Amino acid sequence: MKDLHQMAFLAREAFYRIADSSSDTRNKILFSLSDLLRKHQQEIYDANAADTEEAKKSDLALPLLHRLFFGAEKLNQVILSLQSLAELPDPLNRTLFANEITDGLDLYRVTAPIGVIGVIFESRPDALIQISSLCIKSGNAVLLKGGREAFRTNSILCELVRKALSENGISSDTVQLLETREDVAGMLKEDKLIDLIIPRGSNAFVKYIMDNSNIPVLGHADGICHVYIDSSADPDMAVRIAVDSKTQNVSVCNAMETLLVHKDIAPLILSLLEKAFMAEHVEIRGDENAMKYMDCVPAEEKDWSTEYLDYILSVKVVSSLDEAISHINHYGSHHTDCIVTSDPENASLFMRRVDSAGVYWNVSTRFADGFVYGLGAEVGISTGKIHARGPMGLEGLTTYKYKLLGKGHTMQEMKNGTRAYTHRTLNDSCPV
Amino acid sequence: MKDLHQMAFLAREAFYRIADSSSDTRNKILFSLSDLLRKHQQEIYDANAADTEEAKKSDLALPLLHRLFFGAEKLNQVILSLQSLAELPDPLNRTLFANEITDGLDLYRVTAPIGVIGVIFESRPDALIQISSLCIKSGNAVLLKGGREAFRTNSILCELVRKALSENGISSDTVQLLETREDVAGMLKEDKLIDLIIPRGSNAFVKYIMDNSNIPVLGHADGICHVYIDSSADPDMAVRIAVDSKTQNVSVCNAMETLLVHKDIAPLILSLLEKAFMAEHVEIRGDENAMKYMDCVPAEEKDWSTEYLDYILSVKVVSSLDEAISHINHYGSHHTDCIVTSDPENASLFMRRVDSAGVYWNVSTRFADGFVYGLGAEVGISTGKIHARGPMGLEGLTTYKYKLLGKGHTMQEMKNGTRAYTHRTLNDSCPV
Repeated sequence: MKDLHQMAFLAREAFYRIADSSSDTRNKILFSLSDLLRKHQQEIYDANAADTEEAKKSDLALPLLHRLFFGAEKLNQVILSLQSLAELPDPLNRTLFANEITDGLDLYRVTAPIGVIGVIFESRPDALIQISSLCIKSGNAVLLKGGREAFRTNSILCELVRKALSENGISSDTVQLLETREDVAGMLKEDKLIDLIIPRGSNAFVKYIMDNSNIPVLGHADGICHVYIDSSADPDMAVRIAVDSKTQNVSVCNAMETLLVHKDIAPLILSLLEKAFMAEHVEIRGDENAMKYMDCVPAEEKDWSTEYLDYILSVKVVSSLDEAISHINHYGSHHTDCIVTSDPENASLFMRRVDSAGVYWNVSTRFADGFVYGLGAEVGISTGKIHARGPMGLEGLTTYKYKLLGKGHTMQEMKNGTRAYTHRTLNDSCPV
Repeated sequence: MKDLHQMAFLAREAFYRIADSSSDTRNKILFSLSDLLRKHQQEIYDANAADTEEAKKSDLALPLLHRLFFGAEKLNQVILSLQSLAELPDPLNRTLFANEITDGLDLYRVTAPIGVIGVIFESRPDALIQISSLCIKSGNAVLLKGGREAFRTNSILCELVRKALSENGISSDTVQLLETREDVAGMLKEDKLIDLIIPRGSNAFVKYIMDNSNIPVLGHADGICHVYIDSSADPDMAVRIAVDSKTQNVSVCNAMETLLVHKDIAPLILSLLEKAFMAEHVEIRGDENAMKYMDCVPAEEKDWSTEYLDYILSVKVVSSLDEAISHINHYGSHHTDCIVTSDPENASLFMRRVDSAGVYWNVSTRFADGFVYGLGAEVGISTGKIHARGPMGLEGLTTYKYKLLGKGHTMQEMKNGTRAYTHRTLNDSCPV
């Protein structure tokens, strides 16, 4: 078991340095990492082969085995994404607003990194590079815990990240790898040294983290995403969006789990969808009204709050837009929900009242992704509302600090009227 | 004991309505409240007199008694701040950025309220109006728990807030008052219905809240604020800022608790400060080097991490700017820290490396305040880094949602190359 207090302390010291490094230095680290990955590719493949062999022996499920695999194609993808990350503008030291408080006293709100972040991620080893590189680009230190079955692959990848850091004069302690579950438990205690935990995993796992730490947690949480087909929807478009939202990739958090259909369009739409979903081998669980119009098994109460991540869909007929909105706010997970309608007023009402990170009009729920949104990549998707919502990219890994530049100003002068508040907006960037 | 689950449920339903109300409606509520406060002033004074009388009987400390008092002057201040709050621009439905994803598919990030917020505040009854009005203006619902000794005053103030809401067609359940500590314990369990807790109180109290809830907490936390006097500081300015930071108001979180002085300027500055602080009856606790230059008692290790909120100051002589920065990052509370220097490079280094919500150059730490910053007012000061940092005004009470406007776009089309990502910045506001 590692000494997590010591690791967190070293990460904090490393953070103070990378936080104040130039954009150029942080980009050079990403290029060095690309070169190192290319140069050491055979060692990576060998480590991954050993991980995969052991996983096969312990009967790891096939989809997990597939995620564990790290070959030439993954390597090329990873290198490409490092290069596009380096090309993105620096998320740090941007002036968000500037305000003159009184004569000669200027306030600037500028972006700053968060600090030390703990990330617990699933079996995909490419996630290690993605998370580390986002943290480096945004000036944060990170403690990583990957899947046990990928430990050999993760170890060599982490070593290469650390080498890329030290080659550019930044402490390798900026990125450190945890090994065991006991390490995670130790990390959760370091609330003086660690600023944020991002657990990517099941709801139960996120709850375990929250119950056992005072460190703020941003959950990569469940996705119970809805598509609501309004009475004025174009039927072809509705079918296309419903099929894509459900079947384009069933095992992801932005796939649709519940379909809501307005009663006036239900007879037509549900007969069309019955055929479309049958062709894709989707099992339908319908409420009693849905069962009138399509061949399906009856849905139970728990179906409305279940994330299947499978070829299963719950379907409910609603009598109004209002009922659809209430259903989504009650049973949904505040991830991503779509209305299909040709009526702009209904679209507007839905998008204002549905309390989710993403509210969509006439587009598949599968678009909820950091790369798709143009955020570069994502370290997770937040279904909470505090700090970041939806896909968390570089900007989600920053906070801000207020810089106040005076000439000897005292509060006593403000209170006794020697000086007065001006509160004038400034249009320049912070000079220091 | 109240049924907190029911209260939180009603608050959530009320939130969905006020969140979607017009800016005009929310401003009208603030004006109605001004009128109601004026009209019912005698009832408020009577309730406050009863609270004050009982507090005197139970020997409440004089500063607390002073904070509890709500008379004509407080009423006028409260009414003025309601009017200036109404004049501020609407914090909701602002487009933060807009991005074309692909042809015909537009993404907007727009501001949205947080939801249901629980606020636990101290004995000042005017805080009830301040917090409620900030929440109303920003479209949030709020559960309030004030000091026990102010319960009669808070009850009538809360009734007037609720009347102002219902007079304008918004549910009075948008603002509800808790009574007991058991109510607070009940509130902490409602993590499905409540989005954020803001405890204004001691560090121990904030820790109790964090230990007993999975709801995100933004702390109105300790302020261990520093002033560092650099070797190049103007001595007159340094003395003026140090005295103002310590003595302008000793019992507030943005008062200075520790003074750091560079060794080269220490002999001069500390002899000047000895006189200045003696005149203000400030007790000095110095490290061994400070004791060489001024009359003071020896500081102990725990002094460096103590928030005195009193006429007491710890003083340390440091041998470099780097040592000052390390001391502040280690012992400080990440609230507000100031450098007094005439060297812009040293100012810049300090402001980049000190990891606090406010980093000041040549200005008293007493300026850390939501009104002073031009944020209208504040619901608290956050020393955390997640979501809001420093004074939390209207904007700190909002989050955002992503609105994605398509024309039937599917992910399948993006994956098979029928459509390509454009990621073009849009300059218009979200049309729905």
